[in-house]
Amino acid sequence: MVLDNLLPLELIDKCVGSRIWIIMNGGKEFVGKLIGFDDYVNMVLEDVTEIEPGENDVKLPKILLNGNNICMMVPGGDGRADLEDE
Amino acid sequence: MVLDNLLPLELIDKCVGSRIWIIMNGGKEFVGKLIGFDDYVNMVLEDVTEIEPGENDVKLPKILLNGNNICMMVPGGDGRADLEDE
Amino acid sequence: MVLDNLLPLELIDKCVGSRIWIIMNGGKEFVGKLIGFDDYVNMVLEDVTEIEPGENDVKLPKILLNGNNICMMVPGGDGRADLEDE
Amino acid sequence: MVLDNLLPLELIDKCVGSRIWIIMNGGKEFVGKLIGFDDYVNMVLEDVTEIEPGENDVKLPKILLNGNNICMMVPGGDGRADLEDE
Amino acid sequence: MVLDNLLPLELIDKCVGSRIWIIMNGGKEFVGKLIGFDDYVNMVLEDVTEIEPGENDVKLPKILLNGNNICMMVPGGDGRADLEDE
Amino acid sequence: MVLDNLLPLELIDKCVGSRIWIIMNGGKEFVGKLIGFDDYVNMVLEDVTEIEPGENDVKLPKILLNGNNICMMVPGGDGRADLEDE
Repeated sequence: MVLDNLLPLELIDKCVGSRIWIIMNGGKEFVGKLIGFDDYVNMVLEDVTEIEPGENDVKLPKILLNGNNICMMVPGGDGRADLEDE
Repeated sequence: MVLDNLLPLELIDKCVGSRIWIIMNGGKEFVGKLIGFDDYVNMVLEDVTEIEPGENDVKLPKILLNGNNICMMVPGGDGRADLEDE
Repeated sequence: MVLDNLLPLELIDKCVGSRIWIIMNGGKEFVGKLIGFDDYVNMVLEDVTEIEPGENDVKLPKILLNGNNICMMVPGGDGRADLEDE
Repeated sequence: MVLDNLLPLELIDKCVGSRIWIIMNGGKEFVGKLIGFDDYVNMVLEDVTEIEPGENDVKLPKILLNGNNICMMVPGGDGRADLEDE
Repeated sequence: MVLDNLLPLELIDKCVGSRIWIIMNGGKEFVGKLIGFDDYVNMVLEDVTEIEPGENDVKLPKILLNGNNICMMVPGGDGRADLEDE
Repeated sequence: MVLDNLLPLELIDKCVGSRIWIIMNGGKEFVGKLIGFDDYVNMVLEDVTEIEPGENDVKLPKILLNGNNICMMVPGGDGRADLEDE
């Protein structure tokens, strides 16, 4: 059996140029194209939609997210909307 | 007496390839197969079920969890459902 | 295709001298001119407006924000007021 | 007078093989046998009881606790139950 | 045009010996004279007034604040009281 | 004028062997004798009283507090009880 081991930073690196779904500690969620990251898991996203439950979506051209406060990253995701269709 | 000492990263390393149960700071819980981790306890999980008390389970193919915000890891766990059967 | 990769610290560096919009973990928001930062994403802002939802704006000549507690930075932003006009 | 100075990691090291009581940031409490730790104060516990006020105790064979989110460790403790008897 | 760039630690260093206003993550606020700091933005204050909204002010001769949990520093500030007079 | 500059770790070092008052992020407070600390501001206290507003005090012989989650240290303090007498 070959274990398809994948390091956290390798997974993030594979996502550069693609859309990802980020959930922050406080509950904020972002969907956008990942255009850069560093060892602290800080991330730069482009063409971002901020989704906060119970509020209108907000469009942002480019943001920096602090790795400290990122809870989870889902590659290729389109946020919960996508999942709820399943 | 031999002390069966076990370092934190050794325990995580033993779990690679197996299912684990993760509880995040904010209360989110995940069950999935661990496929990678690093020294910051960042983890990559596959075939993930996100369990949030009072909400429907969400299935996610692959996620990155930020070690910063992981509260607890239980090896071989299947989440609370498993425990409640005991 | 050329990937326009952009590292987090590069994005912050490009913003020095310009106005940015910062959202802190606890919900506080600041708009001001970035005049310095370091590797921990600590930031010095000038001509700052602190915006806390449901409270009056507060003007501050110069502040230091702790990178630890910064959730998100939006370059060139003027805060939510700007977005709500769209 | 001789000061009985005791470094934090020395105290933890003395507890390896014994039962300890851990209180996490979010309020969760664990009692278990410490079988390993590292410089980040990550800890591995065995024969663990998770105590959450107002909920049933949960038994867990082995867990990893993230040092980041540990608030307090009490050596030789048996949790609050022990204290309330005094 | 000359950019008056100012690094975070430079700003703090300039404040040593002067009164500053500190806002912590959890909402606590302190006004006092800064008498020392380090690279983690830990700070020692003297002649301190702790201000917690809705509670009486508390006077403290000397305190250590953990940089981790400092949200914002305002140089030369006298807290919100000062701002509300404007 | 001579500035009586005092580094954070110097202040803590001066407190070893004396009683201190600690306030944690989540609101817990401890009064006890400091018997050790490290560069991460982790602290070992002896003869400790845990004070949680609205609850009975708890006596603990020895505890480790995680520096990460310490908000403030007051040297020579006896907690709020002391201050309220002024």
